[in-house]
Amino acid sequence: MRQSILTKEEKAYIAGFLDGDGSIFAQLVRRHDYKFGFQIRVSVVFFQKKENIWFLNRLQKDLQAGTVRVRNDNMAELSIIGHKSVEAFIKEFYPYLQLKKPIARTVLAIIMESRKVGNDSDRFLEVCKLVDKTAQLTYSKKRTITSAIVQEYLKKHDSIIESL
Amino acid sequence: MRQSILTKEEKAYIAGFLDGDGSIFAQLVRRHDYKFGFQIRVSVVFFQKKENIWFLNRLQKDLQAGTVRVRNDNMAELSIIGHKSVEAFIKEFYPYLQLKKPIARTVLAIIMESRKVGNDSDRFLEVCKLVDKTAQLTYSKKRTITSAIVQEYLKKHDSIIESL
Repeated sequence: MRQSILTKEEKAYIAGFLDGDGSIFAQLVRRHDYKFGFQIRVSVVFFQKKENIWFLNRLQKDLQAGTVRVRNDNMAELSIIGHKSVEAFIKEFYPYLQLKKPIARTVLAIIMESRKVGNDSDRFLEVCKLVDKTAQLTYSKKRTITSAIVQEYLKKHDSIIESL
Repeated sequence: MRQSILTKEEKAYIAGFLDGDGSIFAQLVRRHDYKFGFQIRVSVVFFQKKENIWFLNRLQKDLQAGTVRVRNDNMAELSIIGHKSVEAFIKEFYPYLQLKKPIARTVLAIIMESRKVGNDSDRFLEVCKLVDKTAQLTYSKKRTITSAIVQEYLKKHDSIIESL
Protein backbone atom coordinates (compact mmCIF):
# COMPACT_ATOMS: atom_id res chain seq x y z
CA MET A 1 0.00 0.00 0.00
CA ARG A 2 1.19 3.52 -0.78
CA GLN A 3 2.51 5.80 1.93
CA SER A 4 0.11 8.68 2.28
CA ILE A 5 1.56 11.94 1.09
CA LEU A 6 -1.52 13.95 1.94
CA THR A 7 -1.87 16.33 4.87
CA LYS A 8 -4.88 16.14 7.17
CA GLU A 9 -6.32 19.26 5.53
CA GLU A 10 -5.96 17.74 2.07
CA LYS A 11 -7.68 14.57 3.24
CA ALA A 12 -10.49 16.60 4.80
CA TYR A 13 -10.94 18.51 1.51
CA ILE A 14 -11.11 15.28 -0.51
CA ALA A 15 -13.61 13.78 1.97
CA GLY A 16 -15.77 16.89 1.68
CA PHE A 17 -15.57 16.75 -2.10
CA LEU A 18 -16.58 13.08 -2.08
CA ASP A 19 -19.44 13.74 0.35
CA GLY A 20 -20.64 16.54 -1.92
CA ASP A 21 -20.47 14.99 -5.33
CA GLY A 22 -18.76 11.61 -5.23
CA SER A 23 -19.94 8.07 -4.84
CA ILE A 24 -18.93 4.97 -2.89
CA PHE A 25 -20.74 1.82 -3.97
CA ALA A 26 -20.79 -1.94 -4.40
CA GLN A 27 -22.50 -3.85 -7.17
CA LEU A 28 -22.92 -7.38 -8.48
CA VAL A 29 -21.61 -7.94 -11.97
CA ARG A 30 -22.31 -11.06 -14.03
CA ARG A 31 -19.00 -12.75 -14.84
CA HIS A 32 -19.04 -16.14 -16.46
CA ASP A 33 -15.44 -16.81 -15.51
CA TYR A 34 -15.99 -16.22 -11.77
CA LYS A 35 -16.46 -19.07 -9.33
CA PHE A 36 -19.95 -18.05 -8.26
CA GLY A 37 -20.91 -16.48 -11.58
CA PHE A 38 -20.81 -12.94 -10.22
CA GLN A 39 -18.19 -10.40 -9.28
CA ILE A 40 -18.65 -8.19 -6.24
CA ARG A 41 -17.35 -4.92 -7.56
CA VAL A 42 -16.58 -2.03 -5.21
CA SER A 43 -15.88 1.49 -6.41
CA VAL A 44 -15.16 5.04 -5.30
CA VAL A 45 -15.95 7.58 -8.01
CA PHE A 46 -15.40 11.34 -8.30
CA PHE A 47 -17.24 13.32 -10.98
CA GLN A 48 -16.57 16.64 -12.68
CA LYS A 49 -17.52 18.35 -15.88
CA LYS A 50 -15.02 17.69 -18.64
CA GLU A 51 -13.57 21.20 -18.38
CA ASN A 52 -12.28 20.35 -14.91
CA ILE A 53 -10.58 17.09 -15.85
CA TRP A 54 -7.28 18.65 -14.69
CA PHE A 55 -8.70 18.50 -11.18
CA LEU A 56 -9.44 14.77 -11.42
CA ASN A 57 -6.01 14.12 -12.92
CA ARG A 58 -4.40 15.90 -10.00
CA LEU A 59 -6.58 14.00 -7.55
CA GLN A 60 -5.54 10.74 -9.21
CA LYS A 61 -1.89 11.68 -8.70
CA ASP A 62 -2.49 12.72 -5.10
CA LEU A 63 -4.33 9.49 -4.36
CA GLN A 64 -2.00 7.35 -6.47
CA ALA A 65 -5.10 5.38 -7.34
CA GLY A 66 -7.86 5.15 -9.90
CA THR A 67 -8.36 5.94 -13.55
CA VAL A 68 -9.62 9.14 -15.16
CA ARG A 69 -11.88 8.95 -18.21
CA VAL A 70 -14.33 11.13 -20.11
CA ARG A 71 -17.75 9.52 -20.33
CA ASN A 72 -20.13 9.62 -23.26
CA ASP A 73 -22.23 12.30 -21.56
CA ASN A 74 -19.18 14.59 -21.49
CA MET A 75 -18.67 14.24 -17.77
CA ALA A 76 -15.26 13.21 -16.52
CA GLU A 77 -14.78 10.73 -13.72
CA LEU A 78 -12.02 9.32 -11.58
CA SER A 79 -12.90 5.77 -10.57
CA ILE A 80 -11.06 3.71 -8.02
CA ILE A 81 -12.19 0.12 -8.54
CA GLY A 82 -11.18 -3.07 -6.80
CA HIS A 83 -11.15 -4.46 -3.28
CA LYS A 84 -7.57 -3.53 -2.36
CA SER A 85 -7.65 0.03 -3.69
CA VAL A 86 -11.08 0.81 -2.26
CA GLU A 87 -10.12 -0.68 1.11
CA ALA A 88 -7.02 1.52 1.25
CA PHE A 89 -9.04 4.56 0.24
CA ILE A 90 -11.81 4.02 2.78
CA LYS A 91 -9.37 3.33 5.61
CA GLU A 92 -7.54 6.55 4.86
CA PHE A 93 -10.57 8.81 4.44
CA TYR A 94 -13.14 7.32 6.79
CA PRO A 95 -12.29 9.64 9.71
CA TYR A 96 -12.90 12.68 7.51
CA LEU A 97 -16.18 11.60 5.89
CA GLN A 98 -19.47 12.86 7.26
CA LEU A 99 -22.35 11.99 4.93
CA LYS A 100 -20.84 8.86 3.43
CA LYS A 101 -19.65 7.18 6.63
CA PRO A 102 -22.50 4.58 6.58
CA ILE A 103 -21.90 3.50 2.98
CA ALA A 104 -18.12 3.50 3.56
CA ARG A 105 -18.60 1.18 6.55
CA THR A 106 -20.83 -1.19 4.58
CA VAL A 107 -18.50 -1.34 1.58
CA LEU A 108 -15.57 -2.03 3.88
CA ALA A 109 -17.57 -4.86 5.49
CA ILE A 110 -18.26 -6.26 2.00
CA ILE A 111 -14.55 -6.24 1.22
CA MET A 112 -13.66 -7.94 4.53
CA GLU A 113 -16.41 -10.57 4.24
CA SER A 114 -15.56 -11.30 0.59
CA ARG A 115 -12.13 -12.49 1.69
CA LYS A 116 -13.62 -15.12 3.95
CA VAL A 117 -15.94 -16.63 1.33
CA GLY A 118 -13.63 -19.32 0.02
CA ASN A 119 -15.77 -21.99 -1.64
CA ASP A 120 -18.81 -21.36 0.55
CA SER A 121 -21.65 -20.23 -1.71
CA ASP A 122 -23.94 -19.47 1.27
CA ARG A 123 -21.32 -17.13 2.59
CA PHE A 124 -21.00 -15.57 -0.86
CA LEU A 125 -24.75 -15.01 -0.86
CA GLU A 126 -24.54 -13.27 2.52
CA VAL A 127 -22.05 -10.81 1.05
CA CYS A 128 -24.39 -10.28 -1.91
CA LYS A 129 -27.11 -9.32 0.58
CA LEU A 130 -24.77 -6.70 2.01
CA VAL A 131 -24.40 -5.41 -1.56
CA ASP A 132 -28.21 -5.14 -1.79
CA LYS A 133 -28.08 -3.03 1.37
CA THR A 134 -25.73 -0.52 -0.27
CA ALA A 135 -28.32 0.14 -2.97
CA GLN A 136 -30.55 1.60 -0.26
CA LEU A 137 -27.75 3.70 1.19
CA THR A 138 -26.90 5.17 -2.19
CA TYR A 139 -30.53 5.56 -3.30
CA SER A 140 -29.69 3.46 -6.33
CA LYS A 141 -32.78 2.68 -8.34
CA LYS A 142 -31.46 0.81 -11.33
CA ARG A 143 -30.03 -2.31 -9.74
CA THR A 144 -30.78 -5.23 -11.98
CA ILE A 145 -28.59 -7.83 -10.30
CA THR A 146 -29.57 -8.40 -6.68
CA SER A 147 -28.71 -11.17 -4.23
CA ALA A 148 -32.01 -12.84 -5.27
CA ILE A 149 -30.66 -13.22 -8.82
CA VAL A 150 -27.40 -14.62 -7.46
CA GLN A 151 -29.33 -17.01 -5.23
CA GLU A 152 -31.30 -18.34 -8.17
CA TYR A 153 -28.12 -18.77 -10.18
CA LEU A 154 -26.40 -20.57 -7.32
CA LYS A 155 -29.34 -22.94 -6.86
CA LYS A 156 -28.92 -24.02 -10.46
CA HIS A 157 -25.13 -24.19 -10.44
CA ASP A 158 -24.21 -25.22 -6.92
CA SER A 159 -23.61 -28.82 -7.84
CA ILE A 160 -21.30 -27.73 -10.65
CA ILE A 161 -19.43 -25.33 -8.38
CA GLU A 162 -19.00 -27.99 -5.71
CA SER A 163 -17.51 -30.38 -8.21
CA LEU A 164 -14.83 -27.87 -9.25
CA MET B 1 -18.39 39.44 12.05
CA ARG B 2 -18.43 36.11 13.88
CA GLN B 3 -15.26 34.63 15.33
CA SER B 4 -14.50 31.42 13.48
CA ILE B 5 -14.97 28.34 15.59
CA LEU B 6 -13.91 25.96 12.86
CA THR B 7 -10.61 24.10 12.70
CA LYS B 8 -8.52 24.12 9.53
CA GLU B 9 -9.61 20.57 8.81
CA GLU B 10 -13.29 21.48 9.17
CA LYS B 11 -12.81 24.43 6.83
CA ALA B 12 -11.04 22.22 4.30
CA TYR B 13 -13.92 19.72 4.46
CA ILE B 14 -16.52 22.44 3.88
CA ALA B 15 -14.49 23.88 0.98
CA GLY B 16 -14.29 20.41 -0.57
CA PHE B 17 -18.01 19.92 -0.11
CA LEU B 18 -18.73 23.28 -1.74
CA ASP B 19 -16.36 22.54 -4.62
CA GLY B 20 -18.11 19.21 -5.13
CA ASP B 21 -21.74 20.14 -4.98
CA GLY B 22 -22.19 23.75 -3.89
CA SER B 23 -22.53 27.02 -5.71
CA ILE B 24 -21.15 30.55 -5.42
CA PHE B 25 -22.86 33.07 -7.65
CA ALA B 26 -23.99 36.63 -8.32
CA GLN B 27 -27.14 37.68 -10.12
CA LEU B 28 -29.10 40.78 -11.05
CA VAL B 29 -32.58 40.94 -9.58
CA ARG B 30 -35.22 43.47 -10.66
CA ARG B 31 -36.18 45.58 -7.65
CA HIS B 32 -38.40 48.57 -8.15
CA ASP B 33 -37.42 50.05 -4.81
CA TYR B 34 -33.66 50.04 -5.54
CA LYS B 35 -31.84 53.15 -6.68
CA PHE B 36 -30.76 51.70 -10.01
CA GLY B 37 -33.78 49.42 -10.41
CA PHE B 38 -31.76 46.25 -9.79
CA GLN B 39 -30.24 44.45 -6.86
CA ILE B 40 -26.86 42.75 -7.17
CA ARG B 41 -27.48 39.61 -5.22
CA VAL B 42 -24.61 37.36 -4.13
CA SER B 43 -25.09 33.86 -2.75
CA VAL B 44 -23.32 30.76 -1.50
CA VAL B 45 -25.53 27.67 -1.62
CA PHE B 46 -25.09 24.10 -0.40
CA PHE B 47 -27.44 21.36 -1.64
CA GLN B 48 -28.46 17.98 -0.27
CA LYS B 49 -31.32 15.59 -0.65
CA LYS B 50 -34.04 16.21 1.91
CA GLU B 51 -33.06 13.14 3.94
CA ASN B 52 -29.76 14.82 4.76
CA ILE B 53 -31.20 18.11 5.93
CA TRP B 54 -29.62 17.44 9.36
CA PHE B 55 -26.27 17.91 7.67
CA LEU B 56 -27.24 21.34 6.30
CA ASN B 57 -28.68 22.35 9.67
CA ARG B 58 -25.41 21.43 11.34
CA LEU B 59 -23.46 23.29 8.67
CA GLN B 60 -25.64 26.33 9.24
CA LYS B 61 -24.80 26.21 12.94
CA ASP B 62 -21.08 25.73 12.26
CA LEU B 63 -21.05 28.64 9.82
CA GLN B 64 -23.41 30.75 11.91
CA ALA B 65 -24.78 31.94 8.60
CA GLY B 66 -27.46 31.21 6.05
CA THR B 67 -30.93 29.72 5.99
CA VAL B 68 -31.97 26.11 5.43
CA ARG B 69 -35.11 25.32 3.43
CA VAL B 70 -36.67 22.43 1.54
CA ARG B 71 -37.35 23.31 -2.06
CA ASN B 72 -40.31 22.27 -4.18
CA ASP B 73 -38.24 19.59 -5.88
CA ASN B 74 -37.61 17.94 -2.49
CA MET B 75 -34.00 19.02 -2.36
CA ALA B 76 -32.81 20.87 0.72
CA GLU B 77 -30.50 23.85 0.53
CA LEU B 78 -28.54 26.11 2.83
CA SER B 79 -28.25 29.56 1.26
CA ILE B 80 -26.04 32.34 2.50
CA ILE B 81 -27.27 35.50 0.81
CA GLY B 82 -26.10 39.10 1.11
CA HIS B 83 -22.92 41.07 0.62
CA LYS B 84 -21.68 40.99 4.21
CA SER B 85 -22.33 37.30 4.87
CA VAL B 86 -20.94 36.15 1.52
CA GLU B 87 -17.85 38.35 1.93
CA ALA B 88 -17.17 36.83 5.36
CA PHE B 89 -17.69 33.32 3.98
CA ILE B 90 -15.43 33.79 0.97
CA LYS B 91 -12.67 35.40 3.01
CA GLU B 92 -12.71 32.49 5.43
CA PHE B 93 -12.84 29.66 2.88
CA TYR B 94 -10.93 31.05 -0.08
CA PRO B 95 -7.60 29.47 0.92
CA TYR B 96 -9.22 26.04 1.03
CA LEU B 97 -11.17 26.19 -2.23
CA GLN B 98 -9.73 24.59 -5.36
CA LEU B 99 -12.32 24.48 -8.14
CA LYS B 100 -14.29 27.53 -7.10
CA LYS B 101 -11.41 29.95 -6.48
CA PRO B 102 -12.08 31.93 -9.72
CA ILE B 103 -15.79 32.45 -9.03
CA ALA B 104 -15.05 33.26 -5.37
CA ARG B 105 -12.57 35.94 -6.50
CA THR B 106 -15.05 37.48 -8.94
CA VAL B 107 -17.92 37.52 -6.44
CA LEU B 108 -15.64 39.15 -3.85
CA ALA B 109 -14.69 41.79 -6.45
CA ILE B 110 -18.41 42.41 -7.10
CA ILE B 111 -19.00 42.95 -3.38
CA MET B 112 -16.03 45.33 -3.09
CA GLU B 113 -16.92 47.31 -6.20
CA SER B 114 -20.60 47.54 -5.20
CA ARG B 115 -19.58 49.52 -2.14
CA LYS B 116 -17.92 52.19 -4.26
CA VAL B 117 -20.88 52.75 -6.60
CA GLY B 118 -22.58 55.56 -4.68
CA ASN B 119 -24.79 57.47 -7.13
CA ASP B 120 -22.67 56.66 -10.17
CA SER B 121 -24.81 54.65 -12.59
CA ASP B 122 -21.85 54.01 -14.92
CA ARG B 123 -20.01 52.45 -12.07
CA PHE B 124 -23.08 50.41 -11.20
CA LEU B 125 -23.15 49.16 -14.77
CA GLU B 126 -19.50 48.12 -14.52
CA VAL B 127 -20.37 45.95 -11.53
CA CYS B 128 -23.29 44.48 -13.51
CA LYS B 129 -20.78 43.49 -16.20
CA LEU B 130 -18.79 41.64 -13.57
CA VAL B 131 -22.02 39.83 -12.69
CA ASP B 132 -22.36 38.82 -16.38
CA LYS B 133 -18.87 37.35 -16.13
CA THR B 134 -19.90 35.08 -13.26
CA ALA B 135 -22.55 33.46 -15.48
CA GLN B 136 -19.70 32.14 -17.63
CA LEU B 137 -17.77 30.86 -14.63
CA THR B 138 -20.78 29.00 -13.27
CA TYR B 139 -21.95 27.74 -16.70
CA SER B 140 -25.27 29.40 -15.99
CA LYS B 141 -27.53 29.26 -19.01
CA LYS B 142 -30.75 30.77 -17.79
CA ARG B 143 -29.71 34.33 -17.04
CA THR B 144 -32.50 36.63 -18.11
CA ILE B 145 -31.24 39.85 -16.54
CA THR B 146 -27.84 40.87 -17.89
CA SER B 147 -25.92 44.14 -17.73
CA ALA B 148 -27.39 44.96 -21.16
CA ILE B 149 -30.89 44.94 -19.62
CA VAL B 150 -29.67 47.14 -16.77
CA GLN B 151 -28.01 49.49 -19.26
CA GLU B 152 -31.24 49.89 -21.20
CA TYR B 153 -33.13 50.53 -18.00
CA LEU B 154 -30.59 53.10 -16.85
CA LYS B 155 -30.72 54.92 -20.20
CA LYS B 156 -34.43 55.41 -19.68
CA HIS B 157 -34.25 56.29 -16.01
CA ASP B 158 -30.94 58.07 -15.56
CA SER B 159 -32.51 61.49 -15.51
CA ILE B 160 -34.95 60.39 -12.84
CA ILE B 161 -32.18 58.80 -10.75
CA GLU B 162 -30.04 61.92 -11.01
CA SER B 163 -32.88 64.02 -9.75
CA LEU B 164 -33.29 61.89 -6.61
